[in-house]
Amino acid sequence: MEDEGNTGESPQQEHQHINGWASIAWTHLSYVRQNSPLIQCITNFVSMDLMANTLLSAGASPAMVHSLQEIPDFTPHAHALCINVGTLTADWLPAMKKAAEVANQSNKPWVLDPVAAGASGFRLRACLELVGLRPSVIRGNGSEIIALSKASVGPTKGVDSTHESTDAVEAAKSLALASGSIVAVSGAVDIVTDGQRVAGAQNGVAMLQQITATGCSVTALIAAFVAVDPLHAFEATASALSIFGIAAEIGMDVAKGPASLRMHLIDSLYGLDQATILHRINITFLS
Amino acid sequence: MEDEGNTGESPQQEHQHINGWASIAWTHLSYVRQNSPLIQCITNFVSMDLMANTLLSAGASPAMVHSLQEIPDFTPHAHALCINVGTLTADWLPAMKKAAEVANQSNKPWVLDPVAAGASGFRLRACLELVGLRPSVIRGNGSEIIALSKASVGPTKGVDSTHESTDAVEAAKSLALASGSIVAVSGAVDIVTDGQRVAGAQNGVAMLQQITATGCSVTALIAAFVAVDPLHAFEATASALSIFGIAAEIGMDVAKGPASLRMHLIDSLYGLDQATILHRINITFLS
Amino acid sequence: MEDEGNTGESPQQEHQHINGWASIAWTHLSYVRQNSPLIQCITNFVSMDLMANTLLSAGASPAMVHSLQEIPDFTPHAHALCINVGTLTADWLPAMKKAAEVANQSNKPWVLDPVAAGASGFRLRACLELVGLRPSVIRGNGSEIIALSKASVGPTKGVDSTHESTDAVEAAKSLALASGSIVAVSGAVDIVTDGQRVAGAQNGVAMLQQITATGCSVTALIAAFVAVDPLHAFEATASALSIFGIAAEIGMDVAKGPASLRMHLIDSLYGLDQATILHRINITFLS
Repeated sequence: MEDEGNTGESPQQEHQHINGWASIAWTHLSYVRQNSPLIQCITNFVSMDLMANTLLSAGASPAMVHSLQEIPDFTPHAHALCINVGTLTADWLPAMKKAAEVANQSNKPWVLDPVAAGASGFRLRACLELVGLRPSVIRGNGSEIIALSKASVGPTKGVDSTHESTDAVEAAKSLALASGSIVAVSGAVDIVTDGQRVAGAQNGVAMLQQITATGCSVTALIAAFVAVDPLHAFEATASALSIFGIAAEIGMDVAKGPASLRMHLIDSLYGLDQATILHRINITFLS
Repeated sequence: MEDEGNTGESPQQEHQHINGWASIAWTHLSYVRQNSPLIQCITNFVSMDLMANTLLSAGASPAMVHSLQEIPDFTPHAHALCINVGTLTADWLPAMKKAAEVANQSNKPWVLDPVAAGASGFRLRACLELVGLRPSVIRGNGSEIIALSKASVGPTKGVDSTHESTDAVEAAKSLALASGSIVAVSGAVDIVTDGQRVAGAQNGVAMLQQITATGCSVTALIAAFVAVDPLHAFEATASALSIFGIAAEIGMDVAKGPASLRMHLIDSLYGLDQATILHRINITFLS
Repeated sequence: MEDEGNTGESPQQEHQHINGWASIAWTHLSYVRQNSPLIQCITNFVSMDLMANTLLSAGASPAMVHSLQEIPDFTPHAHALCINVGTLTADWLPAMKKAAEVANQSNKPWVLDPVAAGASGFRLRACLELVGLRPSVIRGNGSEIIALSKASVGPTKGVDSTHESTDAVEAAKSLALASGSIVAVSGAVDIVTDGQRVAGAQNGVAMLQQITATGCSVTALIAAFVAVDPLHAFEATASALSIFGIAAEIGMDVAKGPASLRMHLIDSLYGLDQATILHRINITFLS
C-alpha cells in the first residue's frame, strides 16, 4: 500500500508514516469509544438516520438538535457541532449560525459540510456565511470545495461532484488559508489540507457514491474525531476519513450492492480493531 | 407469464409484446445508468432516504432540494422533478408549486405522488392544485387515485389503500383524460393509463406493502425513467413499475422479512441485467 | 428466566405469571396484526423511517401526519396517536398539542416520547405542556423520566440516558400519579408503572443503544398495542416493550453489528410466533 511516487520517501520512511497514521487513527477511534463525545448535528433530512447510526457505531453520542430556542442551553454541552446544509431552507439558517457562534464562544470545534454549495446563489451565500464563522473543518466533494473557493455559482451537478478530488487540491489549499479551516475533499483519494500540508487518504470504495448520506456521515465522524482531539484537527480529519474508508472496504468484501454495503459498513465501523487499521490504513503526505 | 385472457392475443403476439416491453424497460434502465439524470425530489421526511438510494442504485442522481429560494436556480438544471405530499404542511406547498411551474417552463417532466390524497380537505386541495399544474405522471394507490378523480374526501385509511388497483381503473382513466397526465395505480397489478390505453405491470411482491416508502421510491424511479424518455411517459412509467417489481422479486428470493427485502431490493436494482428483465418482465395491455 | 428474587413467588406462581404475560403479549400482537390499527405519528426526522417500518412489521398502519391543518380531519380516524419531541422546533408544537386534544376528544389513546426532555428549558416546557394533555402512556429513558418528574433542567446527556432505568422507578411512579399516565422507563430492565404496580420487562439486548430510533420505535409499538386495548394500557405497554425486546434478541442471534441487528430486528418482529413469545417473554412484577 506504500505510495512512494507521491512522497519521494524511502519505503522505510513511508512505512513509519503508515504506522504513524495507523497509531493516530486508532488513538482517535479509541478515544471516541471511551469518551462517547456528544455531537450536535444540524443536518439535512436525508442523512439524519445514517449519520446518527455512524456516530453511534463509532462510539459517539449523536444529538440532532436544531431548534434555535435550545441552542443556548444545549450547544455548550456538546463536544462538537456538525452543520450540513443538504436540505437547507431559509428558516434553518439562523439556528446554524447561532450554533456555530455558541460553539466558537464555548471553544468547541465545529465542522461544516457545504452540500451542493454551488447549486444556487442562496445556498452559496449561506455556505459562505457559515465559512465566515470559522469552522474547524470543512469537508465537501471537489465541486463543492471549488465553488466555495471561487465563491461563485458553478456547474455543480446537484449533490454529486463533477470534479475529481485531486483537481480541487489548489482550491482546497486556498480555502484553507482564507478560512483558517482544515479543508477535506472527498473523492477517489480523500484530500486533507491546512493550506500548507496536504495528506491523501486512499481508503474507501467506489460504491460509496451509490449510497446516499455517506459523505454527510463521514463529516459527522470527523466531528467526533475532532471532538476528542480539537488541537489536531488535521490529523483527526485524515483519521476519520480513513477509518470510514476502511470500514467500507471491509463491508465491500461481503456486500452484494449498495444497500448491503451500507449495512456492512456500519457493522464494520462498530467492530473495527487495531490490527485491521494497521493493516489497511493508507494515508500519505502528498506535499 | 402470458396473460391471454386479458389481451385476446395469440401467444405469439403476446410473446412479441413481452419481448417488446422487456426491450423498452431495459433501454430505459440503460439510459438512466448511462446518463445519470438529475432528479429533484420535493418529498416527505419518511421516504427521503430510501428514495435517494433507489435513484442512486438505478444510476440516477437524486437531489432533495425544496427551498423556494433556490428553485429558480436549480430546477432548470434538473432532468425531472418528483413531488410527493407525504408529510405536507402549508409552508412546503409554495415550493412544490413553484418547482412544478419552473419544470413546465423548462420543458422538464415532473411526477406527482399524491400520498393519502383523501385523508383531509387540506391535502386533497393541495393535490388538486398540483394536478392542475399538469404533471407528466401521477402515481398513487387505488384510494388516492379515486380520491383525486372524485375530488372528494373519501374513506382513505391513512397512507394505505383500501381499494384494489383494478377497482381504480376507471377512476385512473378519467383522471388521465381530465389532467392530461399518465396515471399509474399501484397494487397487486400496477395499472398505467393515458386515458385510452391501459397497461398492467404484474411484477412485484406483496411484502412491499410492509416496507415504508416503497411507493414513494417507485414514483422517483418513474421520474428517472421519464427523464431519459420524456416523449414516452406511458412506456417509461410501466417500465419503471416493472423494473422495481422485478428487483423486489429477486430480493424476495433471499429476504427473511420486510427489512431484509428492503436491502435486497436495492441491491437487486443495482445489479439488474438484461437477461433477468427479459425473463421476468410481465407487462400486458389490459385494453 | 424466572426472577424469584424480585417477586418472592414460588416457581409455579411465577410460571403462571410468565404464561399470563406471554398470553397477554401474544394477544396484543395478534390483535394488531388482525386489525391493523392506524397510528398517527408526529415524530422526529431521525426516527420516521424506522418507526414506520416497526409499525408495518408489527401489522399496524403508520401515518406520519403532522400538519396542523389536517389534524381535525385526520386524527379522529386514527386508532392511536404517538407524539415524539426528538427534533422539536417551536413551529411543530401547536400541531402536537392540537392532535393530543383531538385524540382526547375522540377517546383515542395517545403516547408521548419526551426525547431529551431535560436538554433545554424550551424542550422541558414543551414536554410538560404535553404531559398536561394527559397521555395514556409516557415512555422515556431514565434521565428523561427523572427530568419530567422533577420538572427541572437536569444533566441529561443529549438523547442518551445517564441514569439506569431502575434508578428512575420512584420518579416514574411519581410522574404516573401526577399525570395519570402509564409511565415506562427503558433501560437494561424496562420498567412500567401506573403509580402503584411496577412491572419489569427484561427482554432486549444492549446493542439496541447503538441503533438510533429504537427507543422512538418501541414507543410507536406501544401506541399500536394500546390502540387495540385502550383499557389496559399498563399491560399493552409492558407487552410492547417485551415483544420489541424479543425481536431484538432473535435478531441478535444473527447480527454482526448494529446495522444488521436493526434489519434482523424488524424481520424478527414481522415473523414472531406464539411459541417464541412463550419461550422468551420475561416480564415480572417488581412491586
